[in-house]
Amino acid sequence: MLQKALSFLEENQDYFLKDVIELIRIPSISPNPAYQQQIQKAAEWLANKFTQIGMDTVRIIPTRSNPLVYAEWLHAGPGKPTLMFYGHYDVIPPEPLEDWKTDPFEPIIKDGNIYARGTNDDKCQLYSFVGACESYLKTSGMLPVNVKFLLEGAEELGSEGMDAALLEHQRLFECDAAVVVDGAFMNAETPTIGAGSRGLVYAEVFLTGPARDLHSGNYGGIIHNPIQAAAEIVARLHDENCRVTIPGFYDRVVKFSDAEIQATRKLEAPREFYENSLGVPALWGEPGYSVLERLGMRPTLEIHGIGGGFSGEGHKTVIPAQAVIKVSMRIVPNQDPLEIYDLFKDYIAHITPPTVHSTVNLISHCDSSSIDINSPFLYLAEVCYKQGYGYDPVIKRGGGSLAVLGLFQKILSVPVLSLGLGLPDDGLHSPNEKFSLAHFYKGIKGMISMLDASQKIPV
Amino acid sequence: MLQKALSFLEENQDYFLKDVIELIRIPSISPNPAYQQQIQKAAEWLANKFTQIGMDTVRIIPTRSNPLVYAEWLHAGPGKPTLMFYGHYDVIPPEPLEDWKTDPFEPIIKDGNIYARGTNDDKCQLYSFVGACESYLKTSGMLPVNVKFLLEGAEELGSEGMDAALLEHQRLFECDAAVVVDGAFMNAETPTIGAGSRGLVYAEVFLTGPARDLHSGNYGGIIHNPIQAAAEIVARLHDENCRVTIPGFYDRVVKFSDAEIQATRKLEAPREFYENSLGVPALWGEPGYSVLERLGMRPTLEIHGIGGGFSGEGHKTVIPAQAVIKVSMRIVPNQDPLEIYDLFKDYIAHITPPTVHSTVNLISHCDSSSIDINSPFLYLAEVCYKQGYGYDPVIKRGGGSLAVLGLFQKILSVPVLSLGLGLPDDGLHSPNEKFSLAHFYKGIKGMISMLDASQKIPV
Repeated sequence: MLQKALSFLEENQDYFLKDVIELIRIPSISPNPAYQQQIQKAAEWLANKFTQIGMDTVRIIPTRSNPLVYAEWLHAGPGKPTLMFYGHYDVIPPEPLEDWKTDPFEPIIKDGNIYARGTNDDKCQLYSFVGACESYLKTSGMLPVNVKFLLEGAEELGSEGMDAALLEHQRLFECDAAVVVDGAFMNAETPTIGAGSRGLVYAEVFLTGPARDLHSGNYGGIIHNPIQAAAEIVARLHDENCRVTIPGFYDRVVKFSDAEIQATRKLEAPREFYENSLGVPALWGEPGYSVLERLGMRPTLEIHGIGGGFSGEGHKTVIPAQAVIKVSMRIVPNQDPLEIYDLFKDYIAHITPPTVHSTVNLISHCDSSSIDINSPFLYLAEVCYKQGYGYDPVIKRGGGSLAVLGLFQKILSVPVLSLGLGLPDDGLHSPNEKFSLAHFYKGIKGMISMLDASQKIPV
Repeated sequence: MLQKALSFLEENQDYFLKDVIELIRIPSISPNPAYQQQIQKAAEWLANKFTQIGMDTVRIIPTRSNPLVYAEWLHAGPGKPTLMFYGHYDVIPPEPLEDWKTDPFEPIIKDGNIYARGTNDDKCQLYSFVGACESYLKTSGMLPVNVKFLLEGAEELGSEGMDAALLEHQRLFECDAAVVVDGAFMNAETPTIGAGSRGLVYAEVFLTGPARDLHSGNYGGIIHNPIQAAAEIVARLHDENCRVTIPGFYDRVVKFSDAEIQATRKLEAPREFYENSLGVPALWGEPGYSVLERLGMRPTLEIHGIGGGFSGEGHKTVIPAQAVIKVSMRIVPNQDPLEIYDLFKDYIAHITPPTVHSTVNLISHCDSSSIDINSPFLYLAEVCYKQGYGYDPVIKRGGGSLAVLGLFQKILSVPVLSLGLGLPDDGLHSPNEKFSLAHFYKGIKGMISMLDASQKIPV
């Protein structure tokens, strides 16, 4: 069965590539409401695909946000585990468009990579387990274990609606382990197994000054420019040690074990490696923590943009009536997203000068997660990487936030395996996002091997 | 001659209104290169208008930027002065479009106002002297004095190209006084005569961090986010007393006479008036200076926008590769724009942290200006306001920057009369810009009276 599936993959590489390109071509941009129909189209494409490869019970499940696509195949027989595979079919907006070398939704193959928005995040990655199941079903008419697919269309919206959907369909989603495929290797030769992920609090702050936009010649010097006020507030969110200044922000931060800290530090590359690969003149961050500790074990606060006013080409002498700050905080185990949001909101109110008004909105939030490192399912991730890619993985905490990790853990009460098939230079969320063709085929191969190995996990 | 011109105005109000609306409908947006054809169209509209009303020698004069429209009528006879009237036919972009109640280039009349981009700034204002000359020429076939029109298409670009054009055509533009019409009343019943204007230095600062946009989950906490760096730099440009922190910035600032300061303070409204009319919770600015001193007599630094990253609706967790700060400084007599720019540039280099790169560009600059308050031409402005509007004007320094004031003063060596026919709440450079219909007709009337009075100025 395994051999037949692997041969099918071998012989059908072009078919799989053509197939995933169809999916990538659909601009299923969830943060922009104008693309709602494309979200629907991508969901239907996946549902059709699942029916076509022989999954039974294929459903498009509405949520308060974009629909989930669900499929199951549960005929593996007694004693076989049920794995639920998760990926997301939505993508972030391609902007700034002028920085793309090619059309973001017209995938091109160049130098062994597929370039397009959503290749890495997450369409080529989710295709790995879809292609693996297709390889089994088309050759043996069955899978080694029971499989459920749960594909999300609102991951880039912070998985809005997922919590309610999980609660509503808890029975449908019952499984022995969830496998989340949406991440990256640590470097080209080092795949990672997620030991945990940071949570997220995404907020916006509006600063309102004058009742209307003003001309800086006529009014410059007598009112507090909201853009300037925004900058002054942003500048107060970190101290000179790169630490977040919000009172209480670090109070509940978990202290990781020395063993885990030492293990993490062993994975650390020299500082120059990070500086060169990111192209920054110097790294920045909390003193006393290594790069990987800062990324996986420490909470952070990031400014995504300051809007309002004029920042285009040329010259406009406006004092805008309003400015907006887009800000997110990554949080670690023990920090509660809503508590952190309250601390943030109170602090903004506290540091807003009397010359402007401020209002704060919560845009989205999710919990951090951690996996029990004694779970037998961790072995499956090793198989995937060893058999698929020929590399031994490391286990480490990721800096990113996958709401579903925390939600699956909390609501479904199952171990959540977090895999990533991308590469660190794939330009995730950037112009010219790519995914390696070799990783694409090896990902399917890894998943075929993993499905085979999962028969042996006792349940 | 005067009476016939005034009667013509009286009987042709609808005609004048319809006429200026034609001009306002042309979206002659100079800061956006996409509107180049519309700039051309507006210039041609004006040239045709001048020919049609009976000016002779009508010329569209190319510059390195948008063309000047020039016309003259020089048959007033010996001993009569030559006045050169200046206005500008370009407008700033209407953005943000969502804040306009009506189409910015489809003027509508409501509650006694014309609403559209460019009504106040400067199309209804420049029309005052055009309509005044038309009223004379159509009724008497001549003007009381020699008249030149010099209309600019790049005022909103900081009058780029004007310096070279003035030098090149110095003979053509010879006159006894220049009359610049592009400003506003101090309040509904108080017209102003400009005693001087602030100069301008407009610059942009690019802050570059990583080589590409990054995902804040994967990289948040280890690099200095360029948006945050931009905010931190902006926050360092003013101290806690709202003073600009650039070393040397205030070194050459002129100390105005006690008499002028006292006269300025007499014009001051109570603080609440400014707070209420601007809609700000509290005023801001340098302690020890009144509102009108801060606006007209003190240099300032304003942030117009911080670009880069994501500031739209919703949620995007990007760390942008680059941020841009748009900044302008208003300068007062004795401050040299290029010297101030150098101080700014050096200071930015000095305060840029080692974790990002910065580059500074000069976008535009112009000199401040001052008029000799003993000039006999100041009397003409009084006539315009008294006869046209029935109000006595005050003489005061303006906060805005009109490059031509400094340029006419420096290159043409003539007194430059600065008039403003707008109202402070016209929403200059804001959405829903307007101009009062009453001011429109009274402006033409004022200019008719002023042309008549100017016969008596000895030259």
